[in-house]
This record gives sequence, C-alpha cells and structure tokens, in this order.
Amino acid sequence: MDTTKEQSVNKKYDPPDSLTSVGMTTARHVTLADAEHPFKLELGGVLPEVVVEYETYGELSETGDNVVLVCHALSGDAHVAGWDSQAKNDPARAWRLTHPGWWDSVIGPGKAIDTNRFYVVCANVLGSCYGTTGPTSIDPRTGKPYGLHFPMVTIADWVNMEKMLIEHLGVKRLYAVVGGSLGGQQALEWALRYPRMLGKCIIMACGPKLSAQGLGFNAVARHAIMHDENFEAGDYLAHGDSPANGLAVARMLGHITYLSGKGMDYKFGRERLVKSDADQGFDPEFSVESYLNHQSKTFVERFDADSYLYITRAMDYYDAAAAWGDGDLRKACSRLHAELMVVSFSSDWLYPPSACREFVNAFIAERKPVTYVEIESDSGHDAFLVDTEPVSRLLRAYLLAPGINRRFGAIQ
Amino acid sequence: MDTTKEQSVNKKYDPPDSLTSVGMTTARHVTLADAEHPFKLELGGVLPEVVVEYETYGELSETGDNVVLVCHALSGDAHVAGWDSQAKNDPARAWRLTHPGWWDSVIGPGKAIDTNRFYVVCANVLGSCYGTTGPTSIDPRTGKPYGLHFPMVTIADWVNMEKMLIEHLGVKRLYAVVGGSLGGQQALEWALRYPRMLGKCIIMACGPKLSAQGLGFNAVARHAIMHDENFEAGDYLAHGDSPANGLAVARMLGHITYLSGKGMDYKFGRERLVKSDADQGFDPEFSVESYLNHQSKTFVERFDADSYLYITRAMDYYDAAAAWGDGDLRKACSRLHAELMVVSFSSDWLYPPSACREFVNAFIAERKPVTYVEIESDSGHDAFLVDTEPVSRLLRAYLLAPGINRRFGAIQ
Repeated sequence: MDTTKEQSVNKKYDPPDSLTSVGMTTARHVTLADAEHPFKLELGGVLPEVVVEYETYGELSETGDNVVLVCHALSGDAHVAGWDSQAKNDPARAWRLTHPGWWDSVIGPGKAIDTNRFYVVCANVLGSCYGTTGPTSIDPRTGKPYGLHFPMVTIADWVNMEKMLIEHLGVKRLYAVVGGSLGGQQALEWALRYPRMLGKCIIMACGPKLSAQGLGFNAVARHAIMHDENFEAGDYLAHGDSPANGLAVARMLGHITYLSGKGMDYKFGRERLVKSDADQGFDPEFSVESYLNHQSKTFVERFDADSYLYITRAMDYYDAAAAWGDGDLRKACSRLHAELMVVSFSSDWLYPPSACREFVNAFIAERKPVTYVEIESDSGHDAFLVDTEPVSRLLRAYLLAPGINRRFGAIQ
Repeated sequence: MDTTKEQSVNKKYDPPDSLTSVGMTTARHVTLADAEHPFKLELGGVLPEVVVEYETYGELSETGDNVVLVCHALSGDAHVAGWDSQAKNDPARAWRLTHPGWWDSVIGPGKAIDTNRFYVVCANVLGSCYGTTGPTSIDPRTGKPYGLHFPMVTIADWVNMEKMLIEHLGVKRLYAVVGGSLGGQQALEWALRYPRMLGKCIIMACGPKLSAQGLGFNAVARHAIMHDENFEAGDYLAHGDSPANGLAVARMLGHITYLSGKGMDYKFGRERLVKSDADQGFDPEFSVESYLNHQSKTFVERFDADSYLYITRAMDYYDAAAAWGDGDLRKACSRLHAELMVVSFSSDWLYPPSACREFVNAFIAERKPVTYVEIESDSGHDAFLVDTEPVSRLLRAYLLAPGINRRFGAIQ
C-alpha cells in the first residue's frame, strides 16, 4: 500500500497547521527485550534485543481508557500523523520532509481519530526498517547487520510486541485497535489473541488470510529481490550495497496490486509521454510506466529489501482460522470479545469484498457484534489510505458509537 | 498465456494418435523479404531480411476457400497442433517432446477446427524466437544477433507479414482468422486492415487495446528483464549469456495475470510443501510459489528475453480505435466487413468481459454482424487455451454457421 500518498491535508512541513495537525512529532524508543529477557518469536526464533520505535499523540486519560492503537501496513511506519521533527537532521528520515504521517488526514485534533479525545499509539513492527529491530539492525552477537540471519517474524509477534509496548506505557486495555491491510490483520490478531484487552477493533481492506494470488504476487516480489545481483544472500548492507533493482520491481508490482484496474484507467489510461514514433522503444513511454518507475525509485531510497522479505512473509503466513480455529474460521471467531467493524472497498482485489463478507459472516454466525461496511471506490486496496473522507466518517462514528461506552464509560 | 498447458488430448510424442491428431508436423520456412525487397515496418523500421516459420495442416481446397489462419499469443509459436517432428534432433525444440501444439485439442481431424475440412495456417510472429526473424536472428548487416538493434514491431506488421505468407501460399481470401489474447488482437487487426480478405473473424480473451493495468504489468516485466545483471543492453547472446532471472520474474508475473484469483485459490489455496516451522524462510514453501518457480524455470529455457520485450511492447502499442478511428472505436468498427465472433471469459481480468462488451457494442452500433459469447469460467485469461470443450463447441458451430456459407459457398 502506498503510504506516501496521504498528503492531502497538510502539505507544508514548516510550519504545520497546529489547528488540525498533531504538529511536529518525535519518535520514541523503548527496549522491550535484552540479553537477559530475550524476545521469543512465534516460529521459534529468539531476538536478543528488541528496540521499538513508536509515536504517540494526544494525552493518556487518568483512567487509561482512551488509547487507540493504530497498526501500520507493509511499507508503513510508526509515524502516522504530523511532521517528523527529526526529518531535517537525519538523512534516513529526510523523505518525511515532504510527507506527513501516513494517516495524517485521519488523525489529529478534531479529526476522525481525535487526538483531543484519544491517546493514539503506533509502533513500527519487528522486521521493518523504521527504527524497530529488524534485519538492518546490528545483531549484538556478531556486531553486523542481521540481514537474513534475522529470525522469521509473524503478525502474532507484532501483536505481542505491541502488548509489551502498551504495558510499558502503563496501559492495561485498549479503547480500540485500528488498521488497514497488514495493519488490519494485526488488529484482527489483537482481537483474537487478547480478546479482553480491547474494546473495539476496526479492520480495513483485509481478511483473515492472503489469497493464493496474493501469495503469488509476494513470491514474485521476493524472487526479484533475492535474484538481484547485489542481494549478496541478504548481507548487502555489510557489502555497502543494495538490491535496488529487485526492490524496485517489487514496489512497481505492489503498486499495481494496490490500485484498481478502473482507477488506473481513469488516472493514466493509455496516455503517453512520447509522441514521436521515432522515440518508441523500451524506455518508459506511457504515463503509467513513468509513474511506476518514479514510485519505485523513491521507494528504494526509503525502504530496505530484507525488511520487504520479512514483512511479506509475515503477510503470507497469517491465517486467523488456522491459528485460532484449527482451520475453522467460525471457531476462531468464537474467541472474539471486542466489538468489530470490518470495512472493505469495492475495487480492492487484493482483499476483495467477497473475502471480507465471508469473514464477517463467520462473526455473525458466532453472534459477535460486527459491523460491516463496503465503501464504493475506484481506489483499490489503497482506498483506506486515500479515500480519507468516507474512512474518516466511519472511524469517527464507530469510535464514538454508544455500545462501547456502556462497557468503558463515556469518553471525556 | 500458458501455451504449454494444452496437453489434454495427445500426451505421447511417439506415436501420435493419427485418428484425432494432425500427427507429426514439420515447420516450414519462407523468405518474405530480402535486401532487394526489405520489409517496411509500421513504426518506420526496416528489416533487410524476413524469414517466417509457419505450419499448415489439412489440404488447401481447389478454390482456396477453406483457409483458417490461427494467430498465436505472447509466448506461442507456429506449432499449433500435433507433434514437432524436429523436436528430437533440435535442442531448441526439445521442450516440444513433451508438449504438443498449443491448441492441439482444438485443431485436428474431426476437431473444432477440423483439418479434414480446413487448411489451417499459423505463422510465428516477427520479433518472436521460434523461427521467424526476431532479435535472436543474425542481422545480415553486422553478422551478429540483432538484440535491441531489432526494430520495433507492431501487430499491424504481423498482419502484413501473414498477408504476404498467405499470398505466397496462393491464398487470396481467408475463410476465417482465429486467435486468443495477442492472437485475438491480430485477428481483429486483420478484420480492420484487410476487411474484405476474410470471411469470419474470431477473437477470444482480448479487446481493442490493453488497459493501464496491463501496461503496468508489462512495464514491470520488462523492468525486471532490462535490469538483470546479464542483460548487457540486450546483447546478451553475443556475450553467451541470458537475463534468465529477469525473464523468470516476467514469466511468474505473467502467469498470475493469466489465471484468476478464484482459480488460483481452487488450484493452490494456501497449501504448503513445508510442514515444519523450522524450515520456514524465503524458499518456495507454498504450492503456488513452487508452481510459479517451476513455470518460470521451464520458460527461460524455451523463450528469449529480447523477444519478450518486443512482443509485450507490440501488445502495449495496439489500439484499434486509435489506428482506425482517430480514437473512436465505432468509427474503427465501421470498416469491418467480416462476420465477427467475440468470446470473453468471466474470470479474465487482463481483458475482462466488461471491456469486451464495450467493444462488441461498438460493432453493434455500427450494425456489424457480431456474435458475443461470455463463457463462465474460473480459468482466467488462459481459458481460451485450457477450457477447450466450450471453446471447441463455439468454434465448431461458428465456423460452420450458414451466414458465411452464403458468401463462400458450402464447405465440402
């Protein structure tokens, strides 16, 4: 999903609009595991150190009843809203000089996830490359970047890590967990793994598992990365290199899957940059080629190829029915205690509405409190990031719906 | 599209079943252009030599009224039916020892395109790598393979080449032109370019232009090929090398677009080869990954990367409305004289039924004799190759439909 798209509200880094923006933000870090208390992973691996980068906006209420945990997607990060105050001084964060947080138009004072009411937390996931321990981190046992020596991580690990983080923040329960795509699967895993630790669970543009087609696209992306001449068996950082071409292919391909066919026809059609027959050849010539090329170029400057491998594999592995219901989705759903809202987008073909409905029906069959909304949109899978107006309306209404207030008491 | 799939009827190379198969076939070659009569291409290039590889099955009638021209798709060839007699002696054709012609179950004695009635012709297209002049051919001016010095070719060039071929065979009119995918676009171009040279035109799994999404997929495929470390600016053959990894990525990606999401879920689902957590990592682990890997490996042994570039670009460039109607599809359709059948497949998302219907409606608006059939199928774009039973029924019925007999006289 294209986390760099959401720039519709505050386009200027300096000064931010303090009335509707959370303003300048500063990432925080916490060490959640160390040599004495290593982090045990779902698939058997162990991390001798886990540092988490996270951001928070708003104020934690005295009773700790106003926490909204936001979960990010594949290429996302903990920087969900506002402008990164470190972007000017840290070359790795410089791309954020032109990009506010990836859900900036949804989160802020008076916005759908209202930071005047809620204490918003978002953590960068394990295996990513934005400040939380991942394959680009130094393995304390070798003094070198992990590369492919990083252990396999799963969405369950991310949820466990987030649980440790909120406990570190003194939070015992979550008012809500919210996410789209891979972030939506995290939200779902929260509701299944710690059913009584959250009040509301909002899941957008995802389902309980990835389809065979989705698995296939991820396989192609990883194939391109792992067969890049500079991959060096994943140890490219130690060689001062990067499999940039493979990562570019992965990103171009990803982009197509995040858009809809209709949306692409509307946005690009068959428009061409080159008008003369004599110029025709294999350079980018149609607008859509130029767009994909540009997107891939900016992406390889800000993302790590090994992280792409680990995160897509976590996406592949996630299967809520297998994990919690021995393959039976209804049985898995029977664990649920939180109120649930599932939002799908009509033109999302990575997690199509039909798959979401199947999933929602399992909750309904188990008489769970589930709300389902299908938003008509041409924006494809990316709709949860770009169609922020309907998404905001839903989030605002659902977060303040009375059901939850009965259980948690009214929000101040 | 997966031209290696169609193996359902005659699986044994030796001996072929002579009752239903065209049997052993031998490719023929003809030189259609030479230094004195070079081949002028639509986009301005010139080929100093054009050799065409083609196959024919059945007998040309005395009046020459029984010719069916079959047009192949992206990775196809002139070997449409039967078993290649040269496969045993020519390493480049050895893969055909286990693969009959790509439409073998559709073409043969008593089959839908009945070689007892019809004289079937198929030519490998310009720019391909199966015997017709293409980037792997030796440029007579340099004595080296063309590589990217090969000029840009278009579907119009292919049709012009096929016209020269049938004239060489003594044929003045075509009873029918038939093709799927890129082959369907050739059939359409035949009907538009030489409207009075064909009686029936059968177009499957394609439309009058590629969508922005399709352009995007082709761009990703070419990006992977052209950034492979062994690409050598397209001159890899001169270096005794091949951008095999890039071509593998292109093929894996292509495969996903030829199947449907539902078909992939049904065929592969989330089935895994690896059962132990300890084995988990980035090697192919899900069945779908293993399948795509295998398909890409066999493909790079039989296809040329530069040809992939040229043929996908021809696919990108094709736009019937732009070429024949100044952008107006109805105006382009007004040229049509042949009877037309358009066949789409419900789960084809590369050329979805909605696009086909738009195209058919343009013919209807111009009061052209068009038949439209949408086949319910989970086989995706590949359905024209794999759903041979409904495809055969349609072809058989339409080829023998009386309308055409009035014009051509009854088929003997």
